[in-house]
Amino acid sequence: MKRLIIIVLLFVSLTAFVTGQRKTVNLPDLPGYVTLKCDFHMHTVFSDGDVWPTVRIDEALRDGLDAIAITDHLEYTPKKDFLPLDFNAAWKIGEEYAKVRNLILVHGTEITRKMPPGHFNALFITDASLIAKDSVWDAFEAAIKQGAFLQWNHPGWKAQEPDGIPKIYDIHKKLIKNGWLHGIEFFNDSEYYPLVFTFCKQYNLALMGNSDVHGTISEIYTKPENTNRPMTLVFAKERSHDSLKEAMFAGRTMVYFRDMLVGKEEYAKPFFYQCITVGKPFYDNDKSLFFEVTNKSDVPFYLVNGVAGTPASITLTANAVTRIVLSKKVTAPLVYDVRNVLTGEKEVLRIELKY
Amino acid sequence: MKRLIIIVLLFVSLTAFVTGQRKTVNLPDLPGYVTLKCDFHMHTVFSDGDVWPTVRIDEALRDGLDAIAITDHLEYTPKKDFLPLDFNAAWKIGEEYAKVRNLILVHGTEITRKMPPGHFNALFITDASLIAKDSVWDAFEAAIKQGAFLQWNHPGWKAQEPDGIPKIYDIHKKLIKNGWLHGIEFFNDSEYYPLVFTFCKQYNLALMGNSDVHGTISEIYTKPENTNRPMTLVFAKERSHDSLKEAMFAGRTMVYFRDMLVGKEEYAKPFFYQCITVGKPFYDNDKSLFFEVTNKSDVPFYLVNGVAGTPASITLTANAVTRIVLSKKVTAPLVYDVRNVLTGEKEVLRIELKY
Amino acid sequence: MKRLIIIVLLFVSLTAFVTGQRKTVNLPDLPGYVTLKCDFHMHTVFSDGDVWPTVRIDEALRDGLDAIAITDHLEYTPKKDFLPLDFNAAWKIGEEYAKVRNLILVHGTEITRKMPPGHFNALFITDASLIAKDSVWDAFEAAIKQGAFLQWNHPGWKAQEPDGIPKIYDIHKKLIKNGWLHGIEFFNDSEYYPLVFTFCKQYNLALMGNSDVHGTISEIYTKPENTNRPMTLVFAKERSHDSLKEAMFAGRTMVYFRDMLVGKEEYAKPFFYQCITVGKPFYDNDKSLFFEVTNKSDVPFYLVNGVAGTPASITLTANAVTRIVLSKKVTAPLVYDVRNVLTGEKEVLRIELKY
Amino acid sequence: MKRLIIIVLLFVSLTAFVTGQRKTVNLPDLPGYVTLKCDFHMHTVFSDGDVWPTVRIDEALRDGLDAIAITDHLEYTPKKDFLPLDFNAAWKIGEEYAKVRNLILVHGTEITRKMPPGHFNALFITDASLIAKDSVWDAFEAAIKQGAFLQWNHPGWKAQEPDGIPKIYDIHKKLIKNGWLHGIEFFNDSEYYPLVFTFCKQYNLALMGNSDVHGTISEIYTKPENTNRPMTLVFAKERSHDSLKEAMFAGRTMVYFRDMLVGKEEYAKPFFYQCITVGKPFYDNDKSLFFEVTNKSDVPFYLVNGVAGTPASITLTANAVTRIVLSKKVTAPLVYDVRNVLTGEKEVLRIELKY
Repeated sequence: MKRLIIIVLLFVSLTAFVTGQRKTVNLPDLPGYVTLKCDFHMHTVFSDGDVWPTVRIDEALRDGLDAIAITDHLEYTPKKDFLPLDFNAAWKIGEEYAKVRNLILVHGTEITRKMPPGHFNALFITDASLIAKDSVWDAFEAAIKQGAFLQWNHPGWKAQEPDGIPKIYDIHKKLIKNGWLHGIEFFNDSEYYPLVFTFCKQYNLALMGNSDVHGTISEIYTKPENTNRPMTLVFAKERSHDSLKEAMFAGRTMVYFRDMLVGKEEYAKPFFYQCITVGKPFYDNDKSLFFEVTNKSDVPFYLVNGVAGTPASITLTANAVTRIVLSKKVTAPLVYDVRNVLTGEKEVLRIELKY
Repeated sequence: MKRLIIIVLLFVSLTAFVTGQRKTVNLPDLPGYVTLKCDFHMHTVFSDGDVWPTVRIDEALRDGLDAIAITDHLEYTPKKDFLPLDFNAAWKIGEEYAKVRNLILVHGTEITRKMPPGHFNALFITDASLIAKDSVWDAFEAAIKQGAFLQWNHPGWKAQEPDGIPKIYDIHKKLIKNGWLHGIEFFNDSEYYPLVFTFCKQYNLALMGNSDVHGTISEIYTKPENTNRPMTLVFAKERSHDSLKEAMFAGRTMVYFRDMLVGKEEYAKPFFYQCITVGKPFYDNDKSLFFEVTNKSDVPFYLVNGVAGTPASITLTANAVTRIVLSKKVTAPLVYDVRNVLTGEKEVLRIELKY
Repeated sequence: MKRLIIIVLLFVSLTAFVTGQRKTVNLPDLPGYVTLKCDFHMHTVFSDGDVWPTVRIDEALRDGLDAIAITDHLEYTPKKDFLPLDFNAAWKIGEEYAKVRNLILVHGTEITRKMPPGHFNALFITDASLIAKDSVWDAFEAAIKQGAFLQWNHPGWKAQEPDGIPKIYDIHKKLIKNGWLHGIEFFNDSEYYPLVFTFCKQYNLALMGNSDVHGTISEIYTKPENTNRPMTLVFAKERSHDSLKEAMFAGRTMVYFRDMLVGKEEYAKPFFYQCITVGKPFYDNDKSLFFEVTNKSDVPFYLVNGVAGTPASITLTANAVTRIVLSKKVTAPLVYDVRNVLTGEKEVLRIELKY
Repeated sequence: MKRLIIIVLLFVSLTAFVTGQRKTVNLPDLPGYVTLKCDFHMHTVFSDGDVWPTVRIDEALRDGLDAIAITDHLEYTPKKDFLPLDFNAAWKIGEEYAKVRNLILVHGTEITRKMPPGHFNALFITDASLIAKDSVWDAFEAAIKQGAFLQWNHPGWKAQEPDGIPKIYDIHKKLIKNGWLHGIEFFNDSEYYPLVFTFCKQYNLALMGNSDVHGTISEIYTKPENTNRPMTLVFAKERSHDSLKEAMFAGRTMVYFRDMLVGKEEYAKPFFYQCITVGKPFYDNDKSLFFEVTNKSDVPFYLVNGVAGTPASITLTANAVTRIVLSKKVTAPLVYDVRNVLTGEKEVLRIELKY
């Protein structure tokens, strides 16, 4: 009889569960690449998270993501009295569930040690249980053996670095020398570490931005304060698991959180120009010229430090057309710093509006 | 080393987790009683829910509830490949967690059968595992032996009653005759069954209203459409586990969902008058008299069917002062039906505004 | 000294006022045409509205409109004790204000009589004061002399037609015969009149949808209940005053409110197909085929009446990608009625999804 | 015929307009006084505002205010080409409209000069036109003659004081010496001037906080960022025009904006204790004691600088019950600074929680 009930219930829910929506996020592709919106750091009841793995997939679709990794801790499993350890549980539960929903699920896990070396996500692995080793170096080696992309998590987390400043310890140097480290989190939830940008440039690593969510996404990243969860934007040749992996190892990433975009200039600059269109003047009079700039993306751009005679600052509101009034005496180019697009630890993107 | 990490992490989180807030819900007490806001039907990962039991307690505090029961299914446990069966798991995890947060956690479980008899919550039990029996009658008996309050869940659920109409089958009659049935759900999530009111009057049972939540409360009951989850309001002598139990067995309940209140007139009438205050006229002129009615509660009241000469209908908005203009010719009393306060399957509360 | 203060204040405000934003509304263009979002019916303090004319222009930009007409009543001016009659006041105040903000302001007025003939907006006029005549026919004639587009407003307004049903009276027949009537409101605020579609087909008139706002747009059309104000969508050759006028006289309009689109099939069908993209199957298994439909517009589409074997109904959520699961046994085409796209008084659009 | 239309329309609107609601604001009364929520600075189309005077009254009711003053500029009237000057227009239009809605309308005007002396509101006047004088001193004298309460507006407004710091000029000293100055704005919209507190203490003046709204309240003070408009809280003997006036001249005011309360300690301290209730411990164990503090008001309180051994900081969320966990070793009193309740230019309220 019990079995009968179960079958009936499952039958009812199948259609309801599989059909559904993925939100559209307005972030442009780069020429030759498709921009994948990703979050590679999150937890479930299988470590210290609050929810079942399928919830992470549903949340990702609601946020319009293309790919996620569920990365439960190997070494911190406070619920194990009720849930026997199975380091691949989230993957087993999520694999098919994600596939039929057209979400790329990346098999991952979190190696969780005190600093140094701190916490690391191993992504694109095949069996997390083989990475649960006593020695952290053995864990790294086991992950690399599986072809893992190794991401250093929240390197300036104050629980591990009281001054909040990430530091490259010997073990990190050794990882880098071996070619075993592939990315570092610049954003982890609402924390960020500017110095990470310098590390990534110096060692040629991918910038990463992730939520590290333990609770419920919709309760943490609520509009209008937080707007969206941190995302890693990956510029892939196509929307597929293998293309995603290739792009990440090649370091083609930017990170996006709230109204901040962070990435090397070679990605940030074309990204900005893909977002905006400058119109021809729609009106002029004796003194002034009027034209519009359309920002088709979900990211507002705060232009500052205009040269003398031009508007000192302009806000290009997201998904809006911004009017600009220009004195006819102005001959200087409309060159601006984009305050919220970081291209280095202390650099912002410099752009020009050509009308 | 692992152990060390765990201890540090726990230490950090203790204060953050225990201090916290419980929202204030503006619903009045009745003379001699305190009104407890309760939800006696919800699920976690230990049956077919999506979240860990502590999430249910956090949600309850956020919603300003006084008491909840976590009622995982005994017979429907689709996650058991990953989570070994422990019918008391949610209770074990939640008991202390609720106590230090001043939330009354009621030990419960759900007996889950096809109709008849359908689904039942056993509340105020001591060991759910003893209620997991092959025969449903044995299950009922085991629950009653533990002193359970037995609640019939969603009796008109279309998956079990295709016409949506609850029916009293022989097994229900036998339960009632034995004095083993104590309450029936009038509201279950956004479904409701008017006929339940007639059953409750006829057999002297408590009206119940619960969420039956499986996902996340904040994602299901979002403002402004749904306003709040369904609640059972219990009129207890004091805010304690034992007083709650006494009041429920005595049938002193109403149910509340969105802007509907449902309860026997002996509770609904004083409840209404505790919510409102009618002020003295603040202004008058040749033709009209102006006065205000203050509704101090979170429930709006829709007054309809005013007698000739008086306003045909008046909305007493929640947490607001409503102005009323009255022709001086009016001598008739301001008697109204309160459209959203049900006192029977087809009856609404009748009240009078005395200014 | 007073003069000095004024000059200083004006100087301060100029830049702040002229730069600004226009929201992006996601509604597609039709091949060969640009879709202009318009509202041709609104009031200010110069008749019975609550706000200054510039507020209507600011509201329009905030709502992403391309064109508006301010249409104060000629015959109902309850504020005239404080504001001397000037039927062109809103135009004089708004003309330059709109121009520098790239909003098309249409010069208009409302001829306001009891039924028949009811209320009419004269649009694209040159001097409203010349239309203020004792005889309504003289008023019509004066408007037409100025080249007006004549719009019959809310023909089923219950204050004038107690049964809510629009009726063609002799005077309307005469207007039509003369070629003096050009459009009729299908939507006026939250009221709508299905019969208007039949009139528009029969007499070859433009369907119109407008707000008729008297108060504040943002307080009336609040998310999520009302989503947006009623709009007339005009398919113009380009975004200019003259192109707008040409398109309206040619009857190239649809109306849009909340999640309803109303228009002749020749516009509604290509409009729908411009909104959506059907993807190739992204997954299949033994039994099913999985594919996605992207709806790039702000309008959700409710597909119903699927043929046997195909999903009975599909909701294509606005700005989202919808997954569809199809049994491999299905050979029937995915033909649907779009419940919220009206192509006649009692007809809805019929479409096919080709994957 | 025109007349007929007007009569019909007015008849329809009468009931709809007069019945209505006033929101409940949860701010406590002080012993012996009723707390009136007031805004004494706002504009309409009769100076440089965007709306008709009745809109200001409707907005006030929606915000739960008890009293307002409409204070159009005497010297800055940019709309006068369309609206002939009538300095009492807002009063004439609003007087009866406010009365039947139980809102106290205070007759006011704004004397608008460059600094010094800057801008001043004259409140409780009888005829604004008599205050429109060439000499500002003549204007002050005329206002005082009418029994005006004179409020100095935004004394640190950067358009008039580029460094943002209010200064007492000779003319202000003369006003004070004459006893002609009665209050100063501490808050004006989202600006505030800490030094005003020192002025008010030194010269025994009332602290004022007002919106100075020109546009639409609901568009400026949107949740959750701004929460509410700035208000002057007046502690009056009863809710009446004359009691309000008496209380203001007696200086019994505090100001409230967002989550800040500003007032002399003699009002701020009892106000705080009227907002909260400290419960008895609901739980204890070997190490800790658990109790709750209920904050019945709309104002959160941020308690900081707890003494050693006690919680360093506690947030008493608005309309919520806050749990506090205390080590049993603590013997020190729970004494805190309330960071968001200012009792001086650089002082905050100091309170004790007694459980």
